[in-house]
Amino acid sequence: MIPGQAKREPVRIGIFQCAAGGLSLDARLERLRDAVAGAQTGADGGLDLVLCPELFASGYNVADELASRAEPATGAIFARFAELARALDIAIVYGYPEQGDGCIHNAAAFVSAEGELLANHRKQLNSPGSFEEACFAPGEHTTMLSWRGLRIAILICYEVEFPEAVRCAAVAGAKLVLVPTALTDRWGVVAEQVVPARAFENGVWLAYANHAGHENGLDYLGGSKIVAPDASIEAAAGPDEALIGATIDPGRVEAAQRRLPYLRDYRRYRCNT
Amino acid sequence: MIPGQAKREPVRIGIFQCAAGGLSLDARLERLRDAVAGAQTGADGGLDLVLCPELFASGYNVADELASRAEPATGAIFARFAELARALDIAIVYGYPEQGDGCIHNAAAFVSAEGELLANHRKQLNSPGSFEEACFAPGEHTTMLSWRGLRIAILICYEVEFPEAVRCAAVAGAKLVLVPTALTDRWGVVAEQVVPARAFENGVWLAYANHAGHENGLDYLGGSKIVAPDASIEAAAGPDEALIGATIDPGRVEAAQRRLPYLRDYRRYRCNT
Repeated sequence: MIPGQAKREPVRIGIFQCAAGGLSLDARLERLRDAVAGAQTGADGGLDLVLCPELFASGYNVADELASRAEPATGAIFARFAELARALDIAIVYGYPEQGDGCIHNAAAFVSAEGELLANHRKQLNSPGSFEEACFAPGEHTTMLSWRGLRIAILICYEVEFPEAVRCAAVAGAKLVLVPTALTDRWGVVAEQVVPARAFENGVWLAYANHAGHENGLDYLGGSKIVAPDASIEAAAGPDEALIGATIDPGRVEAAQRRLPYLRDYRRYRCNT
Repeated sequence: MIPGQAKREPVRIGIFQCAAGGLSLDARLERLRDAVAGAQTGADGGLDLVLCPELFASGYNVADELASRAEPATGAIFARFAELARALDIAIVYGYPEQGDGCIHNAAAFVSAEGELLANHRKQLNSPGSFEEACFAPGEHTTMLSWRGLRIAILICYEVEFPEAVRCAAVAGAKLVLVPTALTDRWGVVAEQVVPARAFENGVWLAYANHAGHENGLDYLGGSKIVAPDASIEAAAGPDEALIGATIDPGRVEAAQRRLPYLRDYRRYRCNT
């Protein structure tokens, strides 16, 4: 890792699939730092961005602790990730419980390598039948940002299961969709079929970052992946803790969308039944 | 096959994945008859409906012949399929080139076991970069029907690749989506990932009927399948000619839609970017 390294195009992104059940924020940050620092010295030139899972900063399945661990978007959790981003010279996207105005949001923040908060997404759709419905106030919009010349959307977990969410982002110009998630091992169909379908049916890059291991009775699937616009799997994790990476070539978005003009033709479909 | 057999609930449907390249209509009907007649004497009690591929009646990759082979929706092609449906006591869904009012449509007809035309779907979205764009006038609506107490939608090939199309049908109450297709071996991602995702993200049954073999330079994938509302593959064909079947239990639609309320929650997603 060389601070101030020349900015490469296309960018290289990673996913840190952490086995974080029961870990403190300090321990999570340490694991993230060690994994990324190791990758930055690798032969591929390292990563420009690392994506972490849903509620990575607090733990996911810790309903009783979320209120006490929640922080404002630029509060103590942000300060720690911003410090790490600057130290590693890498952008970090991390899930955390956001203390809002009298409520808590299931949020994901994008902090640049310079330590700036570039975007903060609040999950709109709580996962059904989970503690989320009692804990979180839903967000109100799709979140997009520009970074290194790349239009990016952020969705959290259940949101990516809705084709409307990724279509909305792709139509608004997203070339890459970042998805922190917390998927248990019952739902392999989401990681294996739905997530690649979302990339393919819009011709966009999609990174899906899950937890590994166990947490208070939940068994996570792992299976994080980076999917190309033609649905090929550019990087995939197994069930255990891992850092995976892939190079995001925006030219492959243009090629996919030219070959299969879904973003043109979906407007022509008439839904009158 | 026993004409007048008691109508079973739930219904059992089949897909005839035919290696039909170069065959006449007579030869196609004969193969369909032989395959279905064999299945009707099987231990599982036979089929109530059989789904055939896109443009099954004429051949798919026969652009120069489509005008001469086209027939009105209740013309000579229909008469032959209606006769076979009555003889086999089975509903048949078949793709064919429909002679419209000064144009030709890429159509699929649903003929009941009594020989009645219950629905006729005209493909709305021509497959991009294919001969279809020069040959076919697009249809203007989603096609639905009721049969044996089951709400059914018909889509053709490229249409099912649009999440909007299956969502529209599911919201309108479809429990089963029938999809004649002509998919070449380059596009395994559609059969393996997109089609199961469509069933899962709506909690509906989906039957995807492809050609097998070769036809004028096209190599078909085969890979026809019947997908349950939880995305499990209830029946799947390999690359060769095959008749596959599965029992359609509408109760599994209710269970899937209760477990994952996508049809409720998609309305809550706000697309403002």
